[in-house]
Amino acid sequence: MSRWEPNARGRLEQAALELYLEQGFDRTTVVEIAARAGLTERTFFRHFADKREVLFAGAGELRERLVGGVIDAPPSVPPMEAVAGALESLAQMFHARRDLVLPRHRVISANPELQERELIKMAGLAQALTDARRRRGVADPAARLSAEAAIAVFRVAFERWVSGPERADLASLVRSSLEELRGAVAAD
Amino acid sequence: MSRWEPNARGRLEQAALELYLEQGFDRTTVVEIAARAGLTERTFFRHFADKREVLFAGAGELRERLVGGVIDAPPSVPPMEAVAGALESLAQMFHARRDLVLPRHRVISANPELQERELIKMAGLAQALTDARRRRGVADPAARLSAEAAIAVFRVAFERWVSGPERADLASLVRSSLEELRGAVAAD
Repeated sequence: MSRWEPNARGRLEQAALELYLEQGFDRTTVVEIAARAGLTERTFFRHFADKREVLFAGAGELRERLVGGVIDAPPSVPPMEAVAGALESLAQMFHARRDLVLPRHRVISANPELQERELIKMAGLAQALTDARRRRGVADPAARLSAEAAIAVFRVAFERWVSGPERADLASLVRSSLEELRGAVAAD
Repeated sequence: MSRWEPNARGRLEQAALELYLEQGFDRTTVVEIAARAGLTERTFFRHFADKREVLFAGAGELRERLVGGVIDAPPSVPPMEAVAGALESLAQMFHARRDLVLPRHRVISANPELQERELIKMAGLAQALTDARRRRGVADPAARLSAEAAIAVFRVAFERWVSGPERADLASLVRSSLEELRGAVAAD
């Protein structure tokens, strides 16, 4: 008997982010999120397991995009370039969803528990990327190290992006952060 | 009125690790740890806030050693070499405490919640190292990137150490992992 609810998921996401920013994540209830979105609590739970999942439901897509970018690169592309390409593809996705990504970042920055969850998500991404690099034939310590380094590059670029001027390009920041890393770890 | 309890802290640590390995972290109580160590519960709580802290109380010393190694390096030492030196100093500490470090690692590997805590501890180390590098005059994206890379190097070396032959030298594994990272991030 459910009504057709156009873009219920997006409306719930939008409503949740607004409320988390207005009154804090901890003090926001699912009832309030559903009400703000003009939907029922039941509809909320059709889309998300709980109010935290609104912030982390995108992790799977992020991982697929990152791993897909590495796996799908033509064999002629050198391994680190395949990773850089995958990171730039993530950057484009983030840029396109700027209106959700930036408030989400503000919500997470304001809450230590969410920051821990974000950290765990990033470790999961590094692990997925390590596995992808192994499948591309990169040997083991190198696969893990370059995956961890790639995630660090992306995080640093992301932080520069959120704290920098409005029109900065995340993909360029990823590229320049990778160059910075190369310089920083070079044998001086 | 407390009796003199020689090396109470070390005995509690030892007893806790034994019990965590024998019956699992979750199923072990502070009462059991104290009893195994031949000490009282009250003595336990003079040394540790809870049973998890037995595993993480060393984080402060680890951080001081790492940061100290970077800060104290002579100005003539290039930044990445200062970090490598600090990591090798950590490696020596780990090697000397092998009898605690290895069982601790087995306990943490068996418990997802402890793994998350360990991840958060590593992120704290990366942050402390970033701050130390800034104080050494390294500019910002490079400070953060090289600190994250250094922690990744240490973690990978540590994993090779715990899963490798009995007599492997952690300091050499740190050094070779750093070389691997340099190769892995190089512009192919």
